[in-house]
Amino acid sequence: MSFEPASPAAPTPSDTGRFDFRVAARYAGMESSPLKDIFALAARPDLISFAGGIPDPDLFELDDVRDCYDWVLTHCGHRALQYGVSEGEVELREQAARRLSRDLVTTPDQIRVTSGSQEGLFVAAEAMLEPGDVVLVESPTYLAAVQVFAVHGARMVGVETDDGGVLPDALEAAIRTHHPKFVYLIPTFQNPTGRTMDLARRRAVADVLERTATPLVEDDPYGELRFTGDAHPPIASFGAMSAQTLLMKSMSKLMSPGVRIGWIRTEGAILDTLAVAKAAISMQSSVVDQLTVARYLETKDLDAHVAHVCAVYRERRDAMATAIAAVLPAAAHVTRPEGGMFLWASLGPAYDAQAMLADAVAAGVAYLPGWSFFAEDADHSTMRLSYVTHSPAVIADGIDRLGHVIAAHG
Amino acid sequence: MSFEPASPAAPTPSDTGRFDFRVAARYAGMESSPLKDIFALAARPDLISFAGGIPDPDLFELDDVRDCYDWVLTHCGHRALQYGVSEGEVELREQAARRLSRDLVTTPDQIRVTSGSQEGLFVAAEAMLEPGDVVLVESPTYLAAVQVFAVHGARMVGVETDDGGVLPDALEAAIRTHHPKFVYLIPTFQNPTGRTMDLARRRAVADVLERTATPLVEDDPYGELRFTGDAHPPIASFGAMSAQTLLMKSMSKLMSPGVRIGWIRTEGAILDTLAVAKAAISMQSSVVDQLTVARYLETKDLDAHVAHVCAVYRERRDAMATAIAAVLPAAAHVTRPEGGMFLWASLGPAYDAQAMLADAVAAGVAYLPGWSFFAEDADHSTMRLSYVTHSPAVIADGIDRLGHVIAAHG
Repeated sequence: MSFEPASPAAPTPSDTGRFDFRVAARYAGMESSPLKDIFALAARPDLISFAGGIPDPDLFELDDVRDCYDWVLTHCGHRALQYGVSEGEVELREQAARRLSRDLVTTPDQIRVTSGSQEGLFVAAEAMLEPGDVVLVESPTYLAAVQVFAVHGARMVGVETDDGGVLPDALEAAIRTHHPKFVYLIPTFQNPTGRTMDLARRRAVADVLERTATPLVEDDPYGELRFTGDAHPPIASFGAMSAQTLLMKSMSKLMSPGVRIGWIRTEGAILDTLAVAKAAISMQSSVVDQLTVARYLETKDLDAHVAHVCAVYRERRDAMATAIAAVLPAAAHVTRPEGGMFLWASLGPAYDAQAMLADAVAAGVAYLPGWSFFAEDADHSTMRLSYVTHSPAVIADGIDRLGHVIAAHG
Repeated sequence: MSFEPASPAAPTPSDTGRFDFRVAARYAGMESSPLKDIFALAARPDLISFAGGIPDPDLFELDDVRDCYDWVLTHCGHRALQYGVSEGEVELREQAARRLSRDLVTTPDQIRVTSGSQEGLFVAAEAMLEPGDVVLVESPTYLAAVQVFAVHGARMVGVETDDGGVLPDALEAAIRTHHPKFVYLIPTFQNPTGRTMDLARRRAVADVLERTATPLVEDDPYGELRFTGDAHPPIASFGAMSAQTLLMKSMSKLMSPGVRIGWIRTEGAILDTLAVAKAAISMQSSVVDQLTVARYLETKDLDAHVAHVCAVYRERRDAMATAIAAVLPAAAHVTRPEGGMFLWASLGPAYDAQAMLADAVAAGVAYLPGWSFFAEDADHSTMRLSYVTHSPAVIADGIDRLGHVIAAHG
């Protein structure tokens, strides 16, 4: 069992007399998408929503950002409003390379700017995937990535994980069985589980990928949001993996999701293909936003901002971890991530998190049912809970409400 | 003969020892793209380039734009830096609907925001095209649209045109022969020819499309840049075409290409598919840029700005038309558009504009050879010349240089 691209729906005769566009099979029956639904749920003001990975807007460095927009429009306004280049503006690629080089030596020409890491995933899929290709993913994994690969006709195969991430032996076996086009991993504070692969696991996974010459798409939007424990370098930094990996970074969780700026780091000829795909998809990312993010990275103290965000998030993680421990059934399992945005709870076989959601929403609390994160053999008792949006007091209130719903379904 | 998707290239063994990613067949052999090459050519400071459709940055309303960014970040900064919705921010959809309603009654929920009309074309292709589908296009047509359709596996078939645009009878015959997924037209100041379909031609084309229930992708990035003559409503405004058309608009040529904001106007269920495709591709467009463009449309006088731009462009069109008439061979044909950005010259069978380009660049002038704009039966003597970037004096200098090159190739 694995995620298949949507099968073609039979044309539906219009019962309204309206014109019916014929929709591509890969989008047939998709009137909405998991991502869109999350945002809809998160936007309801009557709800304490733990569903989205939505940063707390009170943490945005608004003055710094406004300052940077103003500087860009004052000092290089003509350039900011003009067409740019598909690779991304050089100032931003320089800043991205400088920051990445803390972990992995990177030059600006190894950077391709994208409109957030969502577009990064789409560009990567666009450049590499053919219908029928297999993509190996962690089980569970980020559902919007799965959607991007699926609309490119790929078949996702889930690889077994434990609390330390993907299992190297299972990965190697899956590679030898399925000959995947690439492997998609989120090694740090994984979405949805919050899990992190330690140094030994990273090395073992890198060994498997190198030995089997399997490309890696390494998604790292949360890595800098570490509250405790030691930071680990990306898998792209092990051995020869730097030339075999598309490493995806994003400013969404560090600075602002609204500016939609991220980048891909890789090496070699694929860089040209990524730029051509990017040109086809959107020509280039907003030049204003690119230059502003470059200015921000050059002149503002992102490390200090991230440290502040981490301190706040840590408190919220603690609040949620404490509160949820008190309301979970005895057989439940919950992660306690060292950073990032999400807890992952598995309630146990008696529970169906999807079926429970309506009662939760009625009680004024929302989470994301976990089943949709699985490529196969979904655990329907799982839920993803983001702790970053609300204060500890609101978190305690929300988990208390959730507790009553869980108890009623027990 | 017609444009086919690129055929799979044989895997090339690496001679550098570097890792070779396997690239999707649709991007194999595409180390660059026509669009990227245009931008590269346009960026050379030693060249008078007529190659790109690059607005003159001196015409940007920098103060107004900076003012709007500042207002947005001051008054709704938390929202601007936060995630938005895939459909687009409601303020921008309201402004887009208001402006579109001059020609065609439009509500905000009929608008889908895209990151420029390049992403609009990609979203449309993503939502509708299957490998093997036929797309009917004007011959010649916009080459970056052709690329977007081609990477979705479509086969482009060119429909015969005259100086008034696509021929309705030829269009109907092509529809009955090829059963296209949709027809792609640029009815006003077409790229590359600068041609405009008059009212009667629009009506005739709308009749054909309605009678054959054929969807239309109507691309209108230049329509407001009219110097002389009467404006014509979009084909989407004829009869029942409003429900059968994706009408693409862009702020790139009116306000700024660097902000990458455009929109699609349509009706019915396809609106949901467009939003889902947009979510997959890039989640949402920059919220900062969307709110800024909305503020600009609400509070600044875009009509006055466009009138100013048109006055300047008209002078430049005249300068180029006058200069080029003096240097073209007797058998040549050149368009004199009533607006937009491009002249289209056909030098006659003795000339090969591609072969001539190296000499032109050596002489310090660049244009875009026209062959790549044809889906079939390319006229290799054609060239596209943009008159919007340079002053009349520089235009005269550039065309003079071009004249010597043409004479040498005669």
